[in-house]
Amino acid sequence: MTSTIDLNMVNAYIPGRADVGPETAATIARRDALLGPAYRLMYERPLHIVKGEGAWLIDSDGRRFLDIYNNVTSLGHCHPRVVEAITRQVATLATNTRYLHETILELAERLLATVPGTDLAHMMLTCTGSEANDLAYRMAKVRTGGTGIIVTETAYHGFTDAVSQFSPSLGVTVDLGAHVRLVPAPRAYHADGADLGERFTRDVEAAIADLKRHGIKPAMLIVDSIFTSDGILPDPRCFLKGAVEAIRKAGGLFVGDEVQPGFGRTGEHMWGFQRHGVVPDIVTMGKPMGNGQPIAGLLVTHDAVAQFGRDSRYFNTFAGNTVSCAAAVAVLDTIEQEGLIAHSARIGTHLREGIAALAERHEAIGDVRGVGMFVGVEIVSDRARRTPDRELTSRVVNLLRDKGVLISACAMGHNVLKIRPPMVLDAGQADMVIAALDESFAEAAAGN
Amino acid sequence: MTSTIDLNMVNAYIPGRADVGPETAATIARRDALLGPAYRLMYERPLHIVKGEGAWLIDSDGRRFLDIYNNVTSLGHCHPRVVEAITRQVATLATNTRYLHETILELAERLLATVPGTDLAHMMLTCTGSEANDLAYRMAKVRTGGTGIIVTETAYHGFTDAVSQFSPSLGVTVDLGAHVRLVPAPRAYHADGADLGERFTRDVEAAIADLKRHGIKPAMLIVDSIFTSDGILPDPRCFLKGAVEAIRKAGGLFVGDEVQPGFGRTGEHMWGFQRHGVVPDIVTMGKPMGNGQPIAGLLVTHDAVAQFGRDSRYFNTFAGNTVSCAAAVAVLDTIEQEGLIAHSARIGTHLREGIAALAERHEAIGDVRGVGMFVGVEIVSDRARRTPDRELTSRVVNLLRDKGVLISACAMGHNVLKIRPPMVLDAGQADMVIAALDESFAEAAAGN
Repeated sequence: MTSTIDLNMVNAYIPGRADVGPETAATIARRDALLGPAYRLMYERPLHIVKGEGAWLIDSDGRRFLDIYNNVTSLGHCHPRVVEAITRQVATLATNTRYLHETILELAERLLATVPGTDLAHMMLTCTGSEANDLAYRMAKVRTGGTGIIVTETAYHGFTDAVSQFSPSLGVTVDLGAHVRLVPAPRAYHADGADLGERFTRDVEAAIADLKRHGIKPAMLIVDSIFTSDGILPDPRCFLKGAVEAIRKAGGLFVGDEVQPGFGRTGEHMWGFQRHGVVPDIVTMGKPMGNGQPIAGLLVTHDAVAQFGRDSRYFNTFAGNTVSCAAAVAVLDTIEQEGLIAHSARIGTHLREGIAALAERHEAIGDVRGVGMFVGVEIVSDRARRTPDRELTSRVVNLLRDKGVLISACAMGHNVLKIRPPMVLDAGQADMVIAALDESFAEAAAGN
Repeated sequence: MTSTIDLNMVNAYIPGRADVGPETAATIARRDALLGPAYRLMYERPLHIVKGEGAWLIDSDGRRFLDIYNNVTSLGHCHPRVVEAITRQVATLATNTRYLHETILELAERLLATVPGTDLAHMMLTCTGSEANDLAYRMAKVRTGGTGIIVTETAYHGFTDAVSQFSPSLGVTVDLGAHVRLVPAPRAYHADGADLGERFTRDVEAAIADLKRHGIKPAMLIVDSIFTSDGILPDPRCFLKGAVEAIRKAGGLFVGDEVQPGFGRTGEHMWGFQRHGVVPDIVTMGKPMGNGQPIAGLLVTHDAVAQFGRDSRYFNTFAGNTVSCAAAVAVLDTIEQEGLIAHSARIGTHLREGIAALAERHEAIGDVRGVGMFVGVEIVSDRARRTPDRELTSRVVNLLRDKGVLISACAMGHNVLKIRPPMVLDAGQADMVIAALDESFAEAAAGN
């Protein structure tokens, strides 16, 4: 049997580390045989989920888990409005963008209305965030004549051949492209009060200079505006401005990867970049766009797509299919009608403050940060030195799982709890999370 | 307004070529503004489709079109079994492969059971055929240590940055990779009785030698086993054998792109490569896999994925989601329970013979070929010289559309009618197609 050990991956299931019971062991063995060695599971004891309801996932034994990790089902699992839209459309028509159809145009109008007064002019659809970032790169190459890419040191942007080459969080066994440069993520907790914006600008400028020194013309700077895999880094506001100016000055595009922060999760705006007072040339999006239905895409300025559109037709058989578009319109309706951006801000603040209060009695909690329904908790073995504690982080994630609360971790040191509740989380559920974290830190400190 | 003229694309809508009426013109203008210049529509007068039922598409005026072109909805539009599977699963659970779930394992078992006695051992899932071919290339590079790719001269394998570089049918304005070599497609109609297998083998060997001469190690030969964009080239059986041996001898993999011929469409087997007595190292699939629900993937030998699986975790958020897997299982059930492979052979033969009979009275029909529900009709201005007649081909496609029958065209000369009925087409519908073709050729010859 092929091993699925993956020390590069945060929170991967590692065979043999915990007793999973005979039934789960048999299912894992069957899965390894069928899906092969590239697939991974999460948690020391993987979950066998059979049902989803709102913020809950239910396993094959009927046990309920509060799912505050999956950022696809951002409206909660099986949101009735999305289920209804899919159910209706799939029985009516499921076809492609080579015919005229109203729903894709409505979707484009609705999405473009989220970025008023900007140059973002067109919507293009893909099936996955990876495809959106891949397409953004193709367009950036055509627009700029360059190939160089700048990303943060633990970024994840996707898995296609091109995009995996600028996704360093896949680990050192996946080669970066020779045309890719990494810059340090803007980590306020580790900055000792330095001006993060200035530092990030300087780092991007150095990366541009290094690309040019190697004869590589810059094509784009791409960042996840909440820096998810780098450890969830929202502050200070506007720290991206100088870097964006630098890449543009060098002839490159600025691509905002909103696959994770997008669709209101930050509790302030529809898009994470809006926190930073910048407007990307291309905004990529995905995950929560269809609340589970495969749909992703991008917004782009006319300037960034004009030459590409002359040279290359773009057709993606399933992207923009009528069913996925109907799901995405239902998602936008729900965010608006349930007031989920404001709700995310309110509950997210409650959750963040509750977790921050835990730091008073749990020495391991070095930093609590985030915005809206995106919370990062940095775990350290020494507060003064801010030493990452990967082991304890993993312990807490797995203790929480055993208590029925699902999260994961992130960051270069694998030591930041990654908490991404559905935007519909209520205050009582947030309190459950805080209580479970409190218990887990206590047990982990006691060596349980 | 940006022009959407695309002479590289067969059957693209070209603004101004026909009067589309004020309502359609307004919708097209709105669409161009919203989706930008890279999107294309089909037909001289694009269709505004609102409903699908079996082999029929229905437009916004209630007009019915026999859809014998879309090879995604291979079971017919809105097949009740697939609609039911999606409707049920989307209300139950829509989540990802980082948890255990039964349906993905069932799907893998069912798909692997279609290739008994081969080394194909694992299934991996993507959302699109492009992603499947992109992933195949990533694995081929890791397995072989090479980067070189050999494809046929008018092949289409997808739109990602990597895959578009080996999809010459995108046209001369989309650059091929420096590591890509093209070989002539095995066109029996133009072979003057030469041994096609021998010729194709020789061409692939020459491409391998040329790659090596340029210091490029071969990674893979990839072919669509029905050569869809090259003009639908099924015969003679087994012509791939020598080429497959040649690429393996050179250390490369053979990738069978079954995105178009797969899932029984050839009316003989589940997969097109089975016609040729070869077994790929990787079999990619997509389009009809979920009858419209976005799902695609591949089967792979353990040898081809082993090192990749050690180096790289593979996770695609939407791929393998429970809803798409449920749709794919329903597709397999339907193919089996409705006996659609045998049905495709029977009706496909009826259709092909009916069209072949038309050649007696329409001089422009140079060749009628195909297998199962895949028919190619090569249109020539001179039978003796087999001169491609692109203009007439386009005329016939658009006359058919006006008569309520939807097809398209393909091949380097843009002169092969591409006819891909749903596998559920009945004999009466096949007769309608034959009659509409008869009329269209007559009218086109009369200069209408």
